[in-house]
Amino acid sequence: MPASSADPLPQPEHWRELAVLITGGLGFIGSTLALRLADLGARVTVVDSLIPEYGGNLQNIHGYEQRLRINLSDIRDRFSLQILLRDQAVIFNLAGQTSHLDSMRDPATDLAINCSAQLSLLELCRTVNPEARIVFASTRQLYGRPRYLPVDEHHPTRPVDVNGINKLAAEMYHQLYAEVHELSTCVLRLTNTIGPRMRVKDARQTFVGIWIRRLLEGQPIEVWGGEQLRDFNDVDDVVDALLLAGAQRDLSPEPFNLGHSEPISLRDLAELMIELNGSGSLRVTPYPSERQRIDIGDYYSCHRRFSDATGWEPFRPLRQTLAHTLAYYRDHLGAYR
Amino acid sequence: MPASSADPLPQPEHWRELAVLITGGLGFIGSTLALRLADLGARVTVVDSLIPEYGGNLQNIHGYEQRLRINLSDIRDRFSLQILLRDQAVIFNLAGQTSHLDSMRDPATDLAINCSAQLSLLELCRTVNPEARIVFASTRQLYGRPRYLPVDEHHPTRPVDVNGINKLAAEMYHQLYAEVHELSTCVLRLTNTIGPRMRVKDARQTFVGIWIRRLLEGQPIEVWGGEQLRDFNDVDDVVDALLLAGAQRDLSPEPFNLGHSEPISLRDLAELMIELNGSGSLRVTPYPSERQRIDIGDYYSCHRRFSDATGWEPFRPLRQTLAHTLAYYRDHLGAYR
Repeated sequence: MPASSADPLPQPEHWRELAVLITGGLGFIGSTLALRLADLGARVTVVDSLIPEYGGNLQNIHGYEQRLRINLSDIRDRFSLQILLRDQAVIFNLAGQTSHLDSMRDPATDLAINCSAQLSLLELCRTVNPEARIVFASTRQLYGRPRYLPVDEHHPTRPVDVNGINKLAAEMYHQLYAEVHELSTCVLRLTNTIGPRMRVKDARQTFVGIWIRRLLEGQPIEVWGGEQLRDFNDVDDVVDALLLAGAQRDLSPEPFNLGHSEPISLRDLAELMIELNGSGSLRVTPYPSERQRIDIGDYYSCHRRFSDATGWEPFRPLRQTLAHTLAYYRDHLGAYR
Repeated sequence: MPASSADPLPQPEHWRELAVLITGGLGFIGSTLALRLADLGARVTVVDSLIPEYGGNLQNIHGYEQRLRINLSDIRDRFSLQILLRDQAVIFNLAGQTSHLDSMRDPATDLAINCSAQLSLLELCRTVNPEARIVFASTRQLYGRPRYLPVDEHHPTRPVDVNGINKLAAEMYHQLYAEVHELSTCVLRLTNTIGPRMRVKDARQTFVGIWIRRLLEGQPIEVWGGEQLRDFNDVDDVVDALLLAGAQRDLSPEPFNLGHSEPISLRDLAELMIELNGSGSLRVTPYPSERQRIDIGDYYSCHRRFSDATGWEPFRPLRQTLAHTLAYYRDHLGAYR
């Protein structure tokens, strides 16, 4: 399929005037979704804690401040959530602690956000808004080290860090609340997502973020290992997937993979970024031991099940995504570092 | 193998003067383990919250009060745990919220005890006692509805209630801390465990408890459904397994099943109990809807992997276990209702 900036989604009118809440709505994916939904005419509430180490950034919604309802609060704060969740037709539950390393250094905080707050959100929905459609953003991290490739949803889950365990528990709560309490939930297991608005200050959200920053600052990209294969989804493709999952209430509550069937090695990715940037260099170094222990080797996803159920495909080519992202940060780096 | 009240364990001298801590040590299994360890000459600390709805009961250690160090505290209290965990050679981590129904009614409490406190205990061990051997009591509940029987450790985990999800997360923390932080952990997935000292006030720990009580009080046993198969382990067999797991540091941190290869239907179990009691009656009723949703159908375990690794077998015959248990509660029912 050719790349296209046109919206590939059917029935954009579905979202007009619809009340939608996005947790983590000032983050990378959450804000991209919020802007798209605002453009589709939805009444969007974004909830975000703006914890400095996480992905939230007010720059992400620049120009949309008057078209979104912005509520700064933490999903661990059940009292504000309880009010905010009422009367929402769709809840995109994207808030989370995303750093694998931080989850090992401070497991209690990861658990509070990725596990306890998730269960609490579902309990609140059950109580105050049992009709809402709930879409939960999970992660491919919970598969652990792949036993076969591409990784489909039958692959055993074997998290290699606290973050993966907590995200798996949160997924299971979402499934359980669908099965036992008849909430309408859907779980998407995201792979590496990249694009404008991602965190580039450090590698907490994705290593591609820090690569972008170093490239634009004229520093060499540090590639650990280099031969590992990874798949990448353009954030706009992920937003398409979220919108499809949000609109289609008859989807199974069993987790779906997103992903991309054309993986690339980290070294090739770095070289492509340098080419697109027109300059830059890379330095291959051995894995730091603290990360080695939680690394997963080669990984790419099979997203066939989700595609068959919804028609979704990751349309945007990697080359275009990277060029687009580099251009964004060339203009906006100051607001992200 | 013939039934035997002799200790089938090799090397009982392993435990002499050894410092051992048991969380949930006033509960059904914990106290039975504590008494056995005291008899083997271990220096035993029992930690228990004595929350009235849980399994702890001071009657369980009657006669052993001077031979055990009893510390009443909650595993959610990290400050007391931090002190208590120091200098223990073996930690039997048995504390937990066990009621599946309570976990659906009050999921936050189940999470705090079965998930957060477990992660916190492991963090504390990593900090103050990284050499300790840690044995964690998990549950067959996290397999969910069996896809095949007997259920071995390759069976997918698919918890059907919040309790199962949280116990699964706790298992995974134990495994992860072995793999990443090199703690010495072992996870046993217990099936239905029965015997003296189990909770008989209600069905929070096991339905067999309330059956025993009703039988002794001259009330009919209420059997829901009746055709479901279940396997049962004598609590003394489970204590054997815990001791083997506690002594054998080279066991895999991957979860092991306990279990019994001769399952029995609930109706047959009730009839056997009536026969052994010499009187009584049963009433078969349909499953209450609140429980129906979290019921798992037929279940029995394959415990071959643990047997191959340790030599453990569930020696005690069900008939003897039930007779023994009925005799215990005939003498002590007052202290348990």
